[in-house]
Amino acid sequence: MNYKRILHTLGLVLCCEAGCMLLPLICAIIYKETVVGTFVVSIVLCLSAGIILAMQNSKNKEIYAKEGFIIVALSWIIMSVFGAMPFVISGAIPSFIHALFETVSGFTTTGATIIKDVEALPKSILFWRSFTHWIGGMGVLVFLVALLPMSGGNNLHLMKAESTGPSVNKLVPKVKSSAKILYGIYIAMTIILTLLLLAGGMSLFDSLTYAFGTAGTGGFGVKNSSMADYSPYLQVVITIFMALFGIDFSVYFIILMRKFKLLLRADEVKTYIGIILISTAIICVNCYSVFGNIWTSLRHSAFQVSSIITTTGFATVDFDKWPELSKTILVLLMFIGACSGSTGGGIKVSRVVIFCKSIGKEIMLAAHPKSVKKTMMNGRIIEHETIRVINVYMAAYLVIFVLSVLLISLDNLDFTTNFTAIAATLNNVGPGLAKVGPTANFSIYSPFSIIVMTFDMLIGRLEIFPMLVLFSKYTWRK
Amino acid sequence: MNYKRILHTLGLVLCCEAGCMLLPLICAIIYKETVVGTFVVSIVLCLSAGIILAMQNSKNKEIYAKEGFIIVALSWIIMSVFGAMPFVISGAIPSFIHALFETVSGFTTTGATIIKDVEALPKSILFWRSFTHWIGGMGVLVFLVALLPMSGGNNLHLMKAESTGPSVNKLVPKVKSSAKILYGIYIAMTIILTLLLLAGGMSLFDSLTYAFGTAGTGGFGVKNSSMADYSPYLQVVITIFMALFGIDFSVYFIILMRKFKLLLRADEVKTYIGIILISTAIICVNCYSVFGNIWTSLRHSAFQVSSIITTTGFATVDFDKWPELSKTILVLLMFIGACSGSTGGGIKVSRVVIFCKSIGKEIMLAAHPKSVKKTMMNGRIIEHETIRVINVYMAAYLVIFVLSVLLISLDNLDFTTNFTAIAATLNNVGPGLAKVGPTANFSIYSPFSIIVMTFDMLIGRLEIFPMLVLFSKYTWRK
Repeated sequence: MNYKRILHTLGLVLCCEAGCMLLPLICAIIYKETVVGTFVVSIVLCLSAGIILAMQNSKNKEIYAKEGFIIVALSWIIMSVFGAMPFVISGAIPSFIHALFETVSGFTTTGATIIKDVEALPKSILFWRSFTHWIGGMGVLVFLVALLPMSGGNNLHLMKAESTGPSVNKLVPKVKSSAKILYGIYIAMTIILTLLLLAGGMSLFDSLTYAFGTAGTGGFGVKNSSMADYSPYLQVVITIFMALFGIDFSVYFIILMRKFKLLLRADEVKTYIGIILISTAIICVNCYSVFGNIWTSLRHSAFQVSSIITTTGFATVDFDKWPELSKTILVLLMFIGACSGSTGGGIKVSRVVIFCKSIGKEIMLAAHPKSVKKTMMNGRIIEHETIRVINVYMAAYLVIFVLSVLLISLDNLDFTTNFTAIAATLNNVGPGLAKVGPTANFSIYSPFSIIVMTFDMLIGRLEIFPMLVLFSKYTWRK
Repeated sequence: MNYKRILHTLGLVLCCEAGCMLLPLICAIIYKETVVGTFVVSIVLCLSAGIILAMQNSKNKEIYAKEGFIIVALSWIIMSVFGAMPFVISGAIPSFIHALFETVSGFTTTGATIIKDVEALPKSILFWRSFTHWIGGMGVLVFLVALLPMSGGNNLHLMKAESTGPSVNKLVPKVKSSAKILYGIYIAMTIILTLLLLAGGMSLFDSLTYAFGTAGTGGFGVKNSSMADYSPYLQVVITIFMALFGIDFSVYFIILMRKFKLLLRADEVKTYIGIILISTAIICVNCYSVFGNIWTSLRHSAFQVSSIITTTGFATVDFDKWPELSKTILVLLMFIGACSGSTGGGIKVSRVVIFCKSIGKEIMLAAHPKSVKKTMMNGRIIEHETIRVINVYMAAYLVIFVLSVLLISLDNLDFTTNFTAIAATLNNVGPGLAKVGPTANFSIYSPFSIIVMTFDMLIGRLEIFPMLVLFSKYTWRK
C-alpha cells in the first residue's frame, strides 16, 4: 500500500475544496453576510490540512486498483467532513452529524435534507450547499486528474473508482484529456442552463444554485417549495436539463466529434429515453384526475419522472399524494437511475439492461442447452467478467439495502418511510415517500439512522466497491 | 418436443389428484356433509380428464430438461384448475378466480386466503384445502416418480424442476428410490406430528389439518384465529415442527443412515438454525414491551420466526402490531425462506449464502486481483455455473417482484400492503403486513391482482425457471 501517495492525493483534494469555498466566500461578501468569517476560517482550516497532507509525497507514484478505491473512498469522507464546517461554524446546522449528512447529501448529489426552512439560511451557505452538488456531480478526483500534472496511466484507477457505471468510458486514449473533455462539457452545459434560467426571469443567485443542483443531479433548492413556485417555462427547462445531465457524457463527445453513426449504438441512452417517455405517459394518464388537465398532468409527470430517474430530487408537486401506481413507478425509477458516465445516481440503466439480458439468455439456455448466444450492449459483446461483476454489484447492493432498512427500522417509523428513505439515499435521489416525501425532511430520524443513511449516500455515489474495499479486512491484511 | 409424453404425464397427475380427493370425500361421508356430491363430481371429472390424457402415450419415453420444466409447470396449473372445483361446485368460493387463487395458494403451500370466515365452511372442504398443502409440499411429480414404473434417468429432470433449491440432492443413485425415501420421511414426520398434536388435546380433524399445513409449510388453518387459541404446548410443538420441515430432507436421510460426520458439512442447515435463533432473540427483546413477559415474548417470537422463515404463515398473534424492527425482520425472513430440499418456500438459505459469499469473494478480488479463492458450501466447491444460475435466479426474481408490485398497485392500496402482499405470495408465505396482515385476507384485491398473485405463487413454488420456460418464445420456436 502506497500510504504516502494516498495522503498526498487527499491533501490535493482538500486544497481543491478550499479553492471551491472561495465562491461562497465571494457570495457572502457580495450579499454582505455575517458568515464571511465562517468561510475564511473554513478555507484556512481546509487549506492547512490540505498542505500538510499534500507534503507527504513519495517518489513512488504507482497507484494500483486497490489504492484507487481507497483514495476515492477516503477523499469523499474527508472532503465531506471539511465541507460540513461552514454549516457547523455558522450555526446553520449546529449538530455535526446533521451537518455531515447535509454535506454528504450535497457531494453525493443526493439532495436529502434535514433542514426544515432553507429560506431562513444565509445565501452564501445555500450557495455552498448547492455548489457541493456541482463538485460531486462530475467528481473531485476527475477534476484533479484533469488539472494537475499527475503521472499518466495510474490515474485511470482514480477515474474508474469515481465515475459512474460498470465500466469507465475513456473518450480519448489519454486519461487527462478525457477528464478535461468531461469537465469542459459539464461546464458548458451548466452555463447554457444558467443562461436559459436567467432568460426565464430567475434571479442570478437562483439560476446558479438551481443550475448546480440540476447539473449535479443533486436536488437541493433554495426555496422551501423546491420548484413548485417557478413558472412552467422554468419547470420545463429544468425537466429537459435534468434528463440531459442523466445521459452518458460520452454521447455529447460523440456529437461534438460529429460521429453521428455511433449514436445508433447507444443502447443505454435509447433505453433511458424510452423509460422516461413510457413512465411519463403512464403517470400522466394515472394522475389526470389529480390535475384535471392533460397538459398540467403531462408537465408535472415529465418533471417528476425526469427528476427521479436522474436521481435529482426536485419536485413541482407533492407526489406523495399521487395514486399508488404512479408512486410505485417513481420508486422503481429511483432504483433504475440514470445512464453510466452521467452525473446521475441509482443502479444505472446499463446495469439494469445487462441484468435483464442475462435473464433472457439464461431462459434460452434452459430451453436450448446447447445454443450459443452473446449478450450485446452499445454494439459490443458484453464480457462474461462484466456480467459477473454486475451480478455481484446487485448482490452487494441488495445486502446493503436490506441491512440499512433493518437498522433504521429501530426508529419505529413505518415501512414505506423506511424503505423509501433508504431507496432515496442509497440511490442519491433525495426525497422518498410518506414521512420523507418531497414536502418533508430527514430530521425525523435518530442520529444513528442519520449516520447509516450518510454511509448509504457515499456507498451509492461511489457505487459500492470503493467503500467496501476501504472497510474490508482483506485490504489491510498483508 | 415430446408432446404425447407431456400429455400422458399430465394425465397421470390428474388421476393422482382424483385419488387424493378420496380423502376429503371420506371426510364428508363421516361428517355427513351435503358436499359429498361435490367431491364425487370433482373426482369423476378429474379422473375422466386424467384417463383421456394418460392414454396419449408414445413409445418415445425421452424427456429432456425442457420437457421436464414444461411438464412441471403445466401439471401445477392443471391440477390447480381441477383442485379448485370442490370450492366452486360446493359454493364455498363462488368466484372461479378466487377459488383458483385459494387452490394455488394451497398447492404452492402459500396459505394466503381470500376467505373471511373459514369456520363457516364444511369440514371436508377445509380438509381438502389443508390437504393441498401436504400434496404440494413434497410435490406431486416426486410422488409419481416414487410410485409409477416410469423409465429411469429422465425422471431426474422432473424432480429437478419440482424440487426446491439450486441443485437437486439425489439421496441414492436411483431417482425412484430417492423419491420413495423423501416421501417416506415426509409421511413419517407428518404422523409423528399428528400424534403429538393429538396428545396435546387437539381433535383428530384439527390435528390432521394442522399437520398437513405444517408439513407442507403451508399455513391454512381451520380456525379464523389461526393458532392463537391453542395451548402453549401445541404452539411450541408446531413451532418446532415448522422449523423441522424447513430443513433439507437429505439431513434426515443422513441421520437415518447414521452418517453423523456428514452433518458437520451441512452449512445451509447450520446457517438456517443460526438465523432462526438470532431473529428470535432480537424480536423477543424488541417485543418484550408488547407482552410484558420474557417467556410469552419468546414463545410468540419463536413461533412467528419459525412460521415466516419456513414460509408456513401460521400466526399466534397479530404481528402487524409489533414494533417496526420486528416487522422488518419478518419481512426479510419471508425472502430468505427455508433450506433447499425442504417443503419451505422463499429464495432459500443456500442461495442467500452463496450470493453473500460471492460478494465477499469479489471484494477480496478487488483488493487482491491475482488471488485465487474457491467458494465453498456444504463441504464442496461451488461451481462457477451454480453461482451464475443463482445470480440469474435472483435477477429474474427481482424483475418478477417489481413487475408484480407495479401491476397490483393499480388497485391503489398502500405501498406496505402491496410490497408485502407480493413478498407473501411470491415467497409462498401467506400473510403479509398492513391490509394483508395475519388477521386480514386477500379479498380486498381486484380479480386482476388476484390473477397476478396466483401466478406469483406458482412462480415462487416452482422457483421461476419452469414457468419462464413455459412462457418463453424460445421454447416454442423450432
